[in-house]
Amino acid sequence: MEKLHFASDYMEGAHPQVLDALVKTNNRSTPGYGDDEFCKAAKKEILRTCGCPDGEVYFLVGGTQVNAVLIDAILRPYQGVIAADTAHIAVHEAGAIEYGGHKVLVCEGEEGKLSARAVRRMIRDYVDDANREHMVMPGMVYLSQPTEYGTLYSKEELEDISAVCRDAGIPLYVDGARLAYALAAPENDVTLEDMAALTDAFYIGGTKCGLLFGEALVMTGRSKIPHFFSMIKQHGALLAKGRLLGVQFQALFQDGLYERIGMPAIENAARIKRKLRERGYELAVDSPTNQVFVTVDNALLQRLGERVEYSFMEKVDEDHTMIRLATCWSTTEEKTAELLKLF
Amino acid sequence: MEKLHFASDYMEGAHPQVLDALVKTNNRSTPGYGDDEFCKAAKKEILRTCGCPDGEVYFLVGGTQVNAVLIDAILRPYQGVIAADTAHIAVHEAGAIEYGGHKVLVCEGEEGKLSARAVRRMIRDYVDDANREHMVMPGMVYLSQPTEYGTLYSKEELEDISAVCRDAGIPLYVDGARLAYALAAPENDVTLEDMAALTDAFYIGGTKCGLLFGEALVMTGRSKIPHFFSMIKQHGALLAKGRLLGVQFQALFQDGLYERIGMPAIENAARIKRKLRERGYELAVDSPTNQVFVTVDNALLQRLGERVEYSFMEKVDEDHTMIRLATCWSTTEEKTAELLKLF
Amino acid sequence: MEKLHFASDYMEGAHPQVLDALVKTNNRSTPGYGDDEFCKAAKKEILRTCGCPDGEVYFLVGGTQVNAVLIDAILRPYQGVIAADTAHIAVHEAGAIEYGGHKVLVCEGEEGKLSARAVRRMIRDYVDDANREHMVMPGMVYLSQPTEYGTLYSKEELEDISAVCRDAGIPLYVDGARLAYALAAPENDVTLEDMAALTDAFYIGGTKCGLLFGEALVMTGRSKIPHFFSMIKQHGALLAKGRLLGVQFQALFQDGLYERIGMPAIENAARIKRKLRERGYELAVDSPTNQVFVTVDNALLQRLGERVEYSFMEKVDEDHTMIRLATCWSTTEEKTAELLKLF
Amino acid sequence: MEKLHFASDYMEGAHPQVLDALVKTNNRSTPGYGDDEFCKAAKKEILRTCGCPDGEVYFLVGGTQVNAVLIDAILRPYQGVIAADTAHIAVHEAGAIEYGGHKVLVCEGEEGKLSARAVRRMIRDYVDDANREHMVMPGMVYLSQPTEYGTLYSKEELEDISAVCRDAGIPLYVDGARLAYALAAPENDVTLEDMAALTDAFYIGGTKCGLLFGEALVMTGRSKIPHFFSMIKQHGALLAKGRLLGVQFQALFQDGLYERIGMPAIENAARIKRKLRERGYELAVDSPTNQVFVTVDNALLQRLGERVEYSFMEKVDEDHTMIRLATCWSTTEEKTAELLKLF
Repeated sequence: MEKLHFASDYMEGAHPQVLDALVKTNNRSTPGYGDDEFCKAAKKEILRTCGCPDGEVYFLVGGTQVNAVLIDAILRPYQGVIAADTAHIAVHEAGAIEYGGHKVLVCEGEEGKLSARAVRRMIRDYVDDANREHMVMPGMVYLSQPTEYGTLYSKEELEDISAVCRDAGIPLYVDGARLAYALAAPENDVTLEDMAALTDAFYIGGTKCGLLFGEALVMTGRSKIPHFFSMIKQHGALLAKGRLLGVQFQALFQDGLYERIGMPAIENAARIKRKLRERGYELAVDSPTNQVFVTVDNALLQRLGERVEYSFMEKVDEDHTMIRLATCWSTTEEKTAELLKLF
Repeated sequence: MEKLHFASDYMEGAHPQVLDALVKTNNRSTPGYGDDEFCKAAKKEILRTCGCPDGEVYFLVGGTQVNAVLIDAILRPYQGVIAADTAHIAVHEAGAIEYGGHKVLVCEGEEGKLSARAVRRMIRDYVDDANREHMVMPGMVYLSQPTEYGTLYSKEELEDISAVCRDAGIPLYVDGARLAYALAAPENDVTLEDMAALTDAFYIGGTKCGLLFGEALVMTGRSKIPHFFSMIKQHGALLAKGRLLGVQFQALFQDGLYERIGMPAIENAARIKRKLRERGYELAVDSPTNQVFVTVDNALLQRLGERVEYSFMEKVDEDHTMIRLATCWSTTEEKTAELLKLF
Repeated sequence: MEKLHFASDYMEGAHPQVLDALVKTNNRSTPGYGDDEFCKAAKKEILRTCGCPDGEVYFLVGGTQVNAVLIDAILRPYQGVIAADTAHIAVHEAGAIEYGGHKVLVCEGEEGKLSARAVRRMIRDYVDDANREHMVMPGMVYLSQPTEYGTLYSKEELEDISAVCRDAGIPLYVDGARLAYALAAPENDVTLEDMAALTDAFYIGGTKCGLLFGEALVMTGRSKIPHFFSMIKQHGALLAKGRLLGVQFQALFQDGLYERIGMPAIENAARIKRKLRERGYELAVDSPTNQVFVTVDNALLQRLGERVEYSFMEKVDEDHTMIRLATCWSTTEEKTAELLKLF
Repeated sequence: MEKLHFASDYMEGAHPQVLDALVKTNNRSTPGYGDDEFCKAAKKEILRTCGCPDGEVYFLVGGTQVNAVLIDAILRPYQGVIAADTAHIAVHEAGAIEYGGHKVLVCEGEEGKLSARAVRRMIRDYVDDANREHMVMPGMVYLSQPTEYGTLYSKEELEDISAVCRDAGIPLYVDGARLAYALAAPENDVTLEDMAALTDAFYIGGTKCGLLFGEALVMTGRSKIPHFFSMIKQHGALLAKGRLLGVQFQALFQDGLYERIGMPAIENAARIKRKLRERGYELAVDSPTNQVFVTVDNALLQRLGERVEYSFMEKVDEDHTMIRLATCWSTTEEKTAELLKLF
């Protein structure tokens, strides 16, 4: 019997409409490297949706890749990027930012979130330090929406961080690997237009949100990065058949699909959370998106292991373990019900 | 009227059998990052075909990416990579090797090819130089089969270069972005098994040879690179849904498809070359694979421009231009005939 | 009236015996890059003193340079270096380690010191993490003797950390920018021989301990780094007239000068600490070497500012500031007495 | 009997006036990192001499270091530096430029010199290439005065290259490791003021021209590099006792010493060249500065080896070898006469 898949949100292929678009366009001949009609149309639609027609969109293959290329392109050699201590770039990118020559300047986060106050203090500490020229200068701010723990920045929180960045004259960049799951969450009050208005750059995650692969980096128009195309190439991040990204994102943004595609994930995650709470389980983080962090005892852990793919988070004590259950755009109510029978 | 597409070999989607495999497996849930059954099966089949069961296969997305990650993983900081002056890594990767901290040590090539003699001399010059510790040490040799100009190394030539490398104790690596077109060429006498026997690593090109995207890096077993997975991740080169590469390569290696897939390209390129020669055109390089380099006058160039996508190579003089016509696995006899009517 | 100099330990030129040696040898012609008799003799004497005749010594110009070159030479690209959060490489080298592509993996230190327990936990956390291949691997341990706060590792503490490193198979490296001040401290029980026995590499600081400039990196013999000379050159760290370093270190190690040279610093720092404690000042760190950290009120701070060069550490509150007073090999009892009159 | 030293121009210590300045200032206490009166005065004097009071001067320790730090600071990641194929940065810096992530774009030089025509063609080739965004963009031009072969750019040649650079909007940088020997050569018509007027940056070599160590990088005022100090630190290139550089350069620029200091080198090199030509020796390069390249037969080579330190250049054939004899500021007529007796 096949296991129930709640280990992560990149375990299946593409949303049917996306796959369909790839199949239908397969025999078309187009120029390479994104210089094709599909990419152009998709970029236009994304900028329209984000309300920033003067911005630019670059399509890349994966999230770590976007982070590495963009951060390296924005920062000068003497600068680093401020991030939460649990940030993907700080922990789970195998040192990709440092490989590019830059320090990740970590602030203690709360449930994965940076605060405007912590960012302001870090910038001010640098500016005030008599030895600052011997230190790494904060050159940009990185955060994720949703965060690694599935938590969300409110519009107000994002405005505050954005204001701190603008006061300091440094760009704000948001990693949106799971952005569709933020947009689909009832608790969320940050739209794509808000993202474009409040940041200098952000990426709209595709890999975890319905595509085979692909992320759309939106430069919101405040600043251009000259020769960014060459920097993508230099990082080995330029897709020869760039149109694959255009075709997929065009499908993902048709008729507002992107803003709806996360809903099954959110609904099923909500079901899981509700039931687990009812049954007295402790949820480690109060996450409103598609990730549920729950602590289970050894007996249950073994039972789950036989039937469910989940993610191990950490051993809490001899008898308990925190695990993560992730839903996604393809999660069904039926599978969720099966999962919940095990608790 | 749609143009005739002879600009390059990455202008369309995937071979039907490859696309079909992606569609059929789309709803399957698998672990990420290549730890799935499709990848395992594809790797096994590739190693079997190459006759090196003790080797390892890593799937990556694109060619520049493979080159950058592998070369960086093999070389120590004080080493560089020997390559022909026209090599892809020397000219057309936007400095990806240097971005990784390494010098490309160029030898003058002949029609894109390195000679064993030139490699031996470069290594010996380093060893003999009293100032060698102030210089970049040759740490590996890079070549392409076929080369940038579509030319081929014979088995004997490859054996000679391989022998030079082994004498010097440095690895030999072959870029096979268009390897299928070498394998399908009647002039070719180098099999995949020969490649595995004579090199330390080589990659089997997928992007230009029937896949949506993807390259299979074969480490032939002579040396392992510890933590190569982490280095792939660090370069932003790890595909989350790694199984997409496994699925595609499994289809590409089923029933020997890879060794056949280049044939239409070779046959149609041969047709083009034969006709052009008959009509008195000068072919700049005598290339036995899927690229035809021909010099045309301005009048013809304009006529072609209206009907054909081709690649500009260089302005020869006021009146003449060298262009490249590339065929591929999907090129048809009909389209080729249409093209030839224009000459 | 000239100010009293207690801002740091690199404010003057060289110890008279060192300067004298430079003057006496000035007209001698020698080969460059350290291939001269002075360097050879100095290296031999250092290895003899450290009791590791099979080790190697490399002379470099400054401390950040030694750290950057050595750490880059030891680590593989996927590895980082464990250090205390207050370590020089973590805070005050302008990102030199990250510039070389490596992450500094910080542990919370106590008064600048790493504990064996924290190091062991960091290594174990990496090994135990299911996602470790997406993370930076601990590849070496860095610590300073004395630390940034002037504190000392006891021999037992160093043995414990050394044992953790050997269990884990990773090298231990000690930054000895101020090592002479450790050796001269009565509280110290770690000799140069102990350093050589317990570490894989450490450097003997010259710049802050009597030389015009220069640090002696001792590789204790456990592992050699091939082509380290080329890596020094590649970092722009190779001194053309390398013999200047040999001449200075020869003088510094003659008749045990290095082990005595820190004594005036220690004696005068002890005087300062004793008096300040007597007068009720709060010493922020109980440092047994040549740095005194004291909190003063605004009135005193202003008075000091008129007469003394000191280092600003941090603003404690509206009315108080923590400052650092550093003594050095050339500090005299008279100047110290003058300083103390101001408190 | 001590050998005659003609191997290079960095085999002795400092010019007596320079050493004297170091001795006299040894006991002075100053702030570190170049923030002292000696550095300020020396910088002012250098800018005055160069006629660019709005420029900036940075003191570094060695030539490879200056090249690596400056080139890295000027170039954006997608850019490379144009240089002659024999340039120091292209051959003898162990890959320091590539270590910083940048390609050296080599042009074939003539006797070590770049021509304006070659630079213009390389820039134009890039601009004209349809694939230029896949290539490394020329971002600056590097040349040496004198070159590796001791040859000189005339003022007219330098004006031409400077004009090409300004047309293209890219900076021109000159490596002046041996600049004093250019200034002292009768054939030279390029003054320090010309250098400042025609370049964006150049460095005035100290190590080979009378100092213990040290190079003065002059940014001529056309462009500032923000936070260059931090980048120096990040490269491990910041001297703690920065005043040592100020003291030395102050002495070197006192009463025009720098413009005179190369004279003995030039006079003695001229003697050597005249005599060798008279005696029928073939001089490989017609070098007007302090390096003489001469081809000798095996018998003479052995005789020289017993009495003279020289530099091996290359084996010309079985019976002949090209060697280099370098004079310097301290070379005497007596030693030169002794040398010439051997030919």
